Amino acid sequence: MPSAGILVIGNEILSGKVVDTNSPFLAQELRALGVDLERILVIPDVIDTIAREVRAMSDAYDFVFTSGGVGPTHDDLTMDGVAQAFGIPLAVSQTMAERIERAQGKPPNESLLKMATIPAGAQLIDAGDLWFPVIVVENVHILPGIPELLKRKFLSVRERFRGIPFELKRIYLMQRESDIAEHLNATLREFPDVLMGSYPRTGDGNWSVLVTLESRDGDYLMRALGSLLARLPADAVLKVE
Amino acid sequence: MPSAGILVIGNEILSGKVVDTNSPFLAQELRALGVDLERILVIPDVIDTIAREVRAMSDAYDFVFTSGGVGPTHDDLTMDGVAQAFGIPLAVSQTMAERIERAQGKPPNESLLKMATIPAGAQLIDAGDLWFPVIVVENVHILPGIPELLKRKFLSVRERFRGIPFELKRIYLMQRESDIAEHLNATLREFPDVLMGSYPRTGDGNWSVLVTLESRDGDYLMRALGSLLARLPADAVLKVE
Repeated sequence: MPSAGILVIGNEILSGKVVDTNSPFLAQELRALGVDLERILVIPDVIDTIAREVRAMSDAYDFVFTSGGVGPTHDDLTMDGVAQAFGIPLAVSQTMAERIERAQGKPPNESLLKMATIPAGAQLIDAGDLWFPVIVVENVHILPGIPELLKRKFLSVRERFRGIPFELKRIYLMQRESDIAEHLNATLREFPDVLMGSYPRTGDGNWSVLVTLESRDGDYLMRALGSLLARLPADAVLKVE
Repeated sequence: MPSAGILVIGNEILSGKVVDTNSPFLAQELRALGVDLERILVIPDVIDTIAREVRAMSDAYDFVFTSGGVGPTHDDLTMDGVAQAFGIPLAVSQTMAERIERAQGKPPNESLLKMATIPAGAQLIDAGDLWFPVIVVENVHILPGIPELLKRKFLSVRERFRGIPFELKRIYLMQRESDIAEHLNATLREFPDVLMGSYPRTGDGNWSVLVTLESRDGDYLMRALGSLLARLPADAVLKVE
């Protein structure tokens, strides 16, 4: 199955000024596509750090998605970091400059020209009607930090990443985690390949624990579910979805 | 100044089932305390991965905060990972077992005893009226994944982490980023130690760009602010906060 890492670049997240909504969005999308997200990392706007982490993620996962750091100002350093990660120079892309000129109706000034300066030889993938394409270097997909733009861009290219999705069953239980842990463990011993999560309720609801079972094999999933339900006391289960 | 890293442990975040609200909370708290948060990392419930990343963060930063993986079920592996990170065995803490018995009114069963099993020699810091203390190993502070509990625990120990806080000025501008970038750069050349952020508007508002200036030196901050305001066209500035 394809694996992925998300690299969120931005001092504003680390300093608590902005809440990152991009990685939760991408996590849900990747899950629905059947891509295994293995890591989310938030780092500051520092070229050396960006370069090191881009390279490490690129080596470790099939797909890397970066968020943020692609605007025209001094703190937009993602292109520099990605270029350094692969030892590629930055260069003004003529295609990008033309796109900017078309979008603006006038030639780009120095700051806008910065946005046309990308790792040499990068692949440009058109993202719907947005003038700024998705820029891809090796397996690294460079996405903007602005949530609406990130969403539109990702959705325009998402089919490139499709794997085999997981099937999911949710079991809502009335008992406490410490009272059902043994049944969970016994089910896992019988079905070691099922992914099982156990989450105490943190909001409203008349249940105590949500147990999730997941597998890419629907038949295996249903057998694991049957095994777990057979172990639990009947009055412990509120509902199964 | 003290530095910090946050390690969020949980498949449920990576699979998009749960949105992590703990790291945004901690990021804001650490900023207010004057602690430099340098990294937020989300990883799966895998002991070797937890151990490797705990050790790397512990070596790199003054304080490490983990979130999640401390319950009684199979997927709660943070204690195992922290113990492995420092080559310490896990052991049942008599103090913890007694606290559980007091809270439950009966001796802990096997699953609850798992919650009393912590890295040997770990420091226990009482967290207000919660029975489960903050567990500290070296500079690693182990916090629960449930947001209300994490908040109460962190707030009960926050004074241990106080540094020198940043002062912050926000400048709301009517122009686009690409039209003001040169003024930002010139201000940074004159005041290289100020932290400057530039954020295009993503929600409602009658401004286009929010520029933030930050410094731990209030006088330096006000001089940098004066320098930037003097460079900007007067009608570009909507307000300064």
